[in-house]
Amino acid sequence: MKDLNMKEICLNLLVSRGVELKDISEIVYDLQKKYVPDLDLKTCDDAIHRVLDKREVQNAILTGIELDVLAEKKLLSEPLQTLIDNDNPLYGIDEILVLSICNVYGTIGLTNFGYVDKMKPGIIGRLDEMGKKTDKCHTFLDDIIGAIAAAAASKIAHNAITK
Amino acid sequence: MKDLNMKEICLNLLVSRGVELKDISEIVYDLQKKYVPDLDLKTCDDAIHRVLDKREVQNAILTGIELDVLAEKKLLSEPLQTLIDNDNPLYGIDEILVLSICNVYGTIGLTNFGYVDKMKPGIIGRLDEMGKKTDKCHTFLDDIIGAIAAAAASKIAHNAITK
Amino acid sequence: MKDLNMKEICLNLLVSRGVELKDISEIVYDLQKKYVPDLDLKTCDDAIHRVLDKREVQNAILTGIELDVLAEKKLLSEPLQTLIDNDNPLYGIDEILVLSICNVYGTIGLTNFGYVDKMKPGIIGRLDEMGKKTDKCHTFLDDIIGAIAAAAASKIAHNAITK
Amino acid sequence: MKDLNMKEICLNLLVSRGVELKDISEIVYDLQKKYVPDLDLKTCDDAIHRVLDKREVQNAILTGIELDVLAEKKLLSEPLQTLIDNDNPLYGIDEILVLSICNVYGTIGLTNFGYVDKMKPGIIGRLDEMGKKTDKCHTFLDDIIGAIAAAAASKIAHNAITK
Repeated sequence: MKDLNMKEICLNLLVSRGVELKDISEIVYDLQKKYVPDLDLKTCDDAIHRVLDKREVQNAILTGIELDVLAEKKLLSEPLQTLIDNDNPLYGIDEILVLSICNVYGTIGLTNFGYVDKMKPGIIGRLDEMGKKTDKCHTFLDDIIGAIAAAAASKIAHNAITK
Repeated sequence: MKDLNMKEICLNLLVSRGVELKDISEIVYDLQKKYVPDLDLKTCDDAIHRVLDKREVQNAILTGIELDVLAEKKLLSEPLQTLIDNDNPLYGIDEILVLSICNVYGTIGLTNFGYVDKMKPGIIGRLDEMGKKTDKCHTFLDDIIGAIAAAAASKIAHNAITK
Repeated sequence: MKDLNMKEICLNLLVSRGVELKDISEIVYDLQKKYVPDLDLKTCDDAIHRVLDKREVQNAILTGIELDVLAEKKLLSEPLQTLIDNDNPLYGIDEILVLSICNVYGTIGLTNFGYVDKMKPGIIGRLDEMGKKTDKCHTFLDDIIGAIAAAAASKIAHNAITK
Repeated sequence: MKDLNMKEICLNLLVSRGVELKDISEIVYDLQKKYVPDLDLKTCDDAIHRVLDKREVQNAILTGIELDVLAEKKLLSEPLQTLIDNDNPLYGIDEILVLSICNVYGTIGLTNFGYVDKMKPGIIGRLDEMGKKTDKCHTFLDDIIGAIAAAAASKIAHNAITK
């Protein structure tokens, strides 16, 4: 583990939880294709990499996924164990945690995140379903993916406007 | 003016800019009917009133609409005049200003706002159109309406869950 | 545990980590006595109780203290274990988590928190010292206490101004 | 005006309101010298320039100073005119506006801002005094300066830690 940098650790962690970079790219593409007609998936991948370079993003990923995994293993104390394991809608800490991801490229990230969080496109909807129907816990993971996609979409929007 | 309280001043200001309480209620209803099956417009009206009781909401309304009106009258200095009058997508201060409204009932407000800001339902879409096609300036107003609706929807969600 | 409400659980959890209500009251008192000449500790206690009634505050307390305790027991995965156990200044998730506490009574809470976080008065300084010199981990706890004190001070400020 | 870029416009605007770059540098220096022993004013100047390069910072400066100037000229509508002209402590929009400045280099900015906002070092204290005792209005300006200094201090802190 020592030889890996933080970004690689985060990418590996996402893969271990069932999320590939291309799953996030598809969401970014859908968010921005309307505004950037010549958008391609390579540009979306690059934007996601820039988001994952940021320290605050890496720390939010590490912390959120740790809490999901601990909840899955029933290793948290009550009443936190039940709040996270059931994805209680009044818990709210999952959304707070990912604000730091949404905001890395300014406030457009927040509106993108709100939209994605409501519509649950692609992998986000699948993670949400699995979290509800299996013994997997994705309370933090779906918000983390939505926030990474939202921030990457904001990065692309900024670049498109200032070109 | 002295005899009016701040909430009445804000409601009158919204009417003077073409927004009735029922326009906002319709958005709140559409946001929450999926989650609260027995929702009615009266409950939406009440939730909007609770949001408008808050000092930080009133101050955001007064400030945002003032900037819209000054931009319409070409009374702002450049380059601010052009940034606001053209609703420049990189301006971003409109979204910052209304965060204080979205957050009065917790973080659910943010995701509701993001969704509304993207979908532009009802009066929000009409204000946005008018801002682009006429000499009206609605740079702040459409975000203010979206944020009030989002906060009111969050209030209803909290009440429904804790019932 | 079932018979306890969430606020009692949080108060007990704070006591188990070495923090009594009066420790927080002293910080609130010091923050506000300059602005509210007739302030007493009873008023500070009451304001802290109002802050602890809020769901988002309770959830932040439960989550932050759980992470501190897990770090103390060396039960987190690397590199998160080291980041939290060493209170790494670039970790930042502790400050993000408590923003939800600071903001329950509006933006004054944020400036109060910033001040307390820098000055580390009373129990906050003692927790910070212990976290550095013993095998205790207080990475989240000192920020949680600072945020509760900041929010309670904001509540008192609002009441004083609108009286 | 056309030939000036946005950063120059902002720097000129600050000078026209009585604030030189070196006034802000002194605050940044005082905030960080404790943590970065070999800090010099040149490094502080550079960090402030990086903050002023950011679009959201420029937009917040333009908007806040415009509102101060309009209040000074009594050109705002009531009750907003009185709220801003008297720097009413419950107004709060000044602090909301500058959150976008504080956060450009992560959450450390917020605690730095809270500290500066309470202690009012150097030019910030002088602007606050002038705002209260003369017919100048500095409701937004003192928060803008505090937020620029806080963000620049955060930039220096990040660089020092990751060196």
